Amino acid sequence: MLEQLKLEVYEANMLLPKYNLVTFTWGNVSGIDRNENLIVIKPSGIPYEELLPEHMVVVDLKGNVVEGELNPSSDTATHVVLYNQFPNIKGIVHTHSPWAVTFAQAGIDIPSSGTTHADTFYGPVPVTRKMTESEVSSEYERQTGDVIVETFEERKINPDYVPAVLVNDHGPFTWGKSAQDAVHHAVVLEEVAKMTYHTLQLNPHGIEMDSYLLDKHFLRKHGANAYYGQK
Amino acid sequence: MLEQLKLEVYEANMLLPKYNLVTFTWGNVSGIDRNENLIVIKPSGIPYEELLPEHMVVVDLKGNVVEGELNPSSDTATHVVLYNQFPNIKGIVHTHSPWAVTFAQAGIDIPSSGTTHADTFYGPVPVTRKMTESEVSSEYERQTGDVIVETFEERKINPDYVPAVLVNDHGPFTWGKSAQDAVHHAVVLEEVAKMTYHTLQLNPHGIEMDSYLLDKHFLRKHGANAYYGQK
Amino acid sequence: MLEQLKLEVYEANMLLPKYNLVTFTWGNVSGIDRNENLIVIKPSGIPYEELLPEHMVVVDLKGNVVEGELNPSSDTATHVVLYNQFPNIKGIVHTHSPWAVTFAQAGIDIPSSGTTHADTFYGPVPVTRKMTESEVSSEYERQTGDVIVETFEERKINPDYVPAVLVNDHGPFTWGKSAQDAVHHAVVLEEVAKMTYHTLQLNPHGIEMDSYLLDKHFLRKHGANAYYGQK
Amino acid sequence: MLEQLKLEVYEANMLLPKYNLVTFTWGNVSGIDRNENLIVIKPSGIPYEELLPEHMVVVDLKGNVVEGELNPSSDTATHVVLYNQFPNIKGIVHTHSPWAVTFAQAGIDIPSSGTTHADTFYGPVPVTRKMTESEVSSEYERQTGDVIVETFEERKINPDYVPAVLVNDHGPFTWGKSAQDAVHHAVVLEEVAKMTYHTLQLNPHGIEMDSYLLDKHFLRKHGANAYYGQK
Repeated sequence: MLEQLKLEVYEANMLLPKYNLVTFTWGNVSGIDRNENLIVIKPSGIPYEELLPEHMVVVDLKGNVVEGELNPSSDTATHVVLYNQFPNIKGIVHTHSPWAVTFAQAGIDIPSSGTTHADTFYGPVPVTRKMTESEVSSEYERQTGDVIVETFEERKINPDYVPAVLVNDHGPFTWGKSAQDAVHHAVVLEEVAKMTYHTLQLNPHGIEMDSYLLDKHFLRKHGANAYYGQK
Repeated sequence: MLEQLKLEVYEANMLLPKYNLVTFTWGNVSGIDRNENLIVIKPSGIPYEELLPEHMVVVDLKGNVVEGELNPSSDTATHVVLYNQFPNIKGIVHTHSPWAVTFAQAGIDIPSSGTTHADTFYGPVPVTRKMTESEVSSEYERQTGDVIVETFEERKINPDYVPAVLVNDHGPFTWGKSAQDAVHHAVVLEEVAKMTYHTLQLNPHGIEMDSYLLDKHFLRKHGANAYYGQK
Repeated sequence: MLEQLKLEVYEANMLLPKYNLVTFTWGNVSGIDRNENLIVIKPSGIPYEELLPEHMVVVDLKGNVVEGELNPSSDTATHVVLYNQFPNIKGIVHTHSPWAVTFAQAGIDIPSSGTTHADTFYGPVPVTRKMTESEVSSEYERQTGDVIVETFEERKINPDYVPAVLVNDHGPFTWGKSAQDAVHHAVVLEEVAKMTYHTLQLNPHGIEMDSYLLDKHFLRKHGANAYYGQK
Repeated sequence: MLEQLKLEVYEANMLLPKYNLVTFTWGNVSGIDRNENLIVIKPSGIPYEELLPEHMVVVDLKGNVVEGELNPSSDTATHVVLYNQFPNIKGIVHTHSPWAVTFAQAGIDIPSSGTTHADTFYGPVPVTRKMTESEVSSEYERQTGDVIVETFEERKINPDYVPAVLVNDHGPFTWGKSAQDAVHHAVVLEEVAKMTYHTLQLNPHGIEMDSYLLDKHFLRKHGANAYYGQK
């Protein structure tokens, strides 16, 4: 069942330690088959050194396990919300990568402060509000997804153009057109968070880039008039 | 004598360079057999490249060498105090890992500023008070253990829930259910110290997380109602 | 056609990941044959793991592709301006190396704050002014080259003595007597940016070195009276 | 001639890249035979990948080349001064390791802020005054040695107890009982500089440790009553 997607999601999970985005088991990647409406996700708490493609767990869009003997990631309910609410995404990554977590713990957006950011994120990477006690105490992981969606809706951010969020006091989620694309965005996010952290130390005020430069770099790589790379 | 424990303690010691927690010989791991009341510990000043399982030294709960031709770690007396006073622990690690040392030298607790912290430490990682001249000049290593115990008693911290401390102007000790578990906590401590250092640079005030989020994350992984990982 | 130069430029490109100057495809190196007035440059968006010498693209000094089936780097027009305006240079590197980008995003020159800097750069590494909306919206990459040249002309900096620039809100370009020499300067720039960032955190004011020490170190390695190294 | 010492000095030089203390050729190690009064030192500007034991250059205590076809390190005159003025040392290292350079460029001593420091350095690692224009313009490298010696004399620091210095706006020199011991001190210096830099960011004032704790740790490892390690 979904053998090709399981392999893809397995390989995307194995990129997390390769890119130094995880310590121990602190991360997970999923992918979705939009025809079957089935999600493939990493099992909970299995060390990356021991992970195999057949460990991947299949869940449906209500979060019920459809196949697999292991418990799915404890963050599965968050992934499920995002797949339901962001209809164009096909892969999701969660990590505790340290520079992104730094902004999440500080409760601060990552401002768009240069072209490295603009090449991937069409505006600041938002931090959610803090979750309330009632949200944390009941269906916490589902509500984590809800607060992400609320952030994009209230701030009118298009998740296809800013494929990342910082959950307050927690860490980043990223997504993309595939599991591997979501990992790509997780790597860029960490690099951008590192650069922008240091930029803020040198120059605490006014590092937001001009909107026309943001437009230029994002649209040079994305959309109908993109001209970066090979056709 | 205690051949299995010697192998475990040796392997746990060898994890310190693997996880980049030590420079030269600046660290040591011990484990205890609670039935025999015997501690196995790294010898003093032996480079990790030359370390062998048979080099491990066996001491009793008064700190007397019971077996082994090498001097035990110069920090042995500190380990002995902790095994006597914290009855549930079975492994101890001491390192000079740089981010934890940063907080120890600054004389500042590591605040609980996010879920990465809360997944392992149920509250701030405390720094001890500075040791007095008389404590330093007489039985220094034993008194180092005493000041750690005092810190947990006076601040009413349960060492099973916060398995780490920063000795002021010195560095971290961590412990756990085994030597390897104590190393695991040493890795988490270093990662959390790094993240929280940077969080404090971005946002110097008010980064302490909400207590209900701390509860949620710690209890999601620990205790009777834990649901992280596989059963 | 230019097989030797293609190999040199290919090898210089492969040094970027070796020296940890690039994430994904965020960098490019070119070289020029000053007799033929032809430039060899990396193709756009090809991962370094897949790059081969025969992928290199040949363009003329107007930026027209002369040979090669792949699109040249999206930054080609910037390289072309620099080869036209800086007649002594034979290699150019562009990266998004994080410490240099930090200064570029902060909009701050890298001051000459020590002999490590002075051994390679005869004065501060300048940051350009921000580009205007009209510059960004029309022939952006060519205008990026123009603003670099303007910076050196207006500030009367000799590009042979300061072989590096920071494009505001973007990142570094470096150049040299060959493609490999330009990479050498990119490595030094990143190291110097890292050191000077930290120096500024310790001592925010007055870290500019004395001009006679700058003279001594630069001229010890460069020019007629140099005495560093072997003859 | 001095084949054993050449091999030792060669191997000590090769430790610099192993411990990540150098970029390109930015470092050198020497050793001395105190019976012959001859110094063995790295040649100038040779990449570490190409360095061989037979490249080592022999100079006398006036700095004259006694054997070797290559130019000795451009810093040879500094080494010669130190061997003449610090009679107990038998090895010297110079690097541009980034954390030590950070303090050198900031013009700030590295304070003794914890036991990691005290285990090796019996007090702050001093920064020299800035060199004057006349010192820089004439016999610069010899005068660099003189200003180091002046620093230790004027501040009454024993170079056997504090085997390191920061040359203002330049970088560190360390020394020891052998070339390898001097490298050991260079590694410790870099680690201590890194930790103390971060400590100063968390707590800018009053991080100097108590003198009795400094005494305890230094004397636990050094001198007649040392008890660290094996006998």
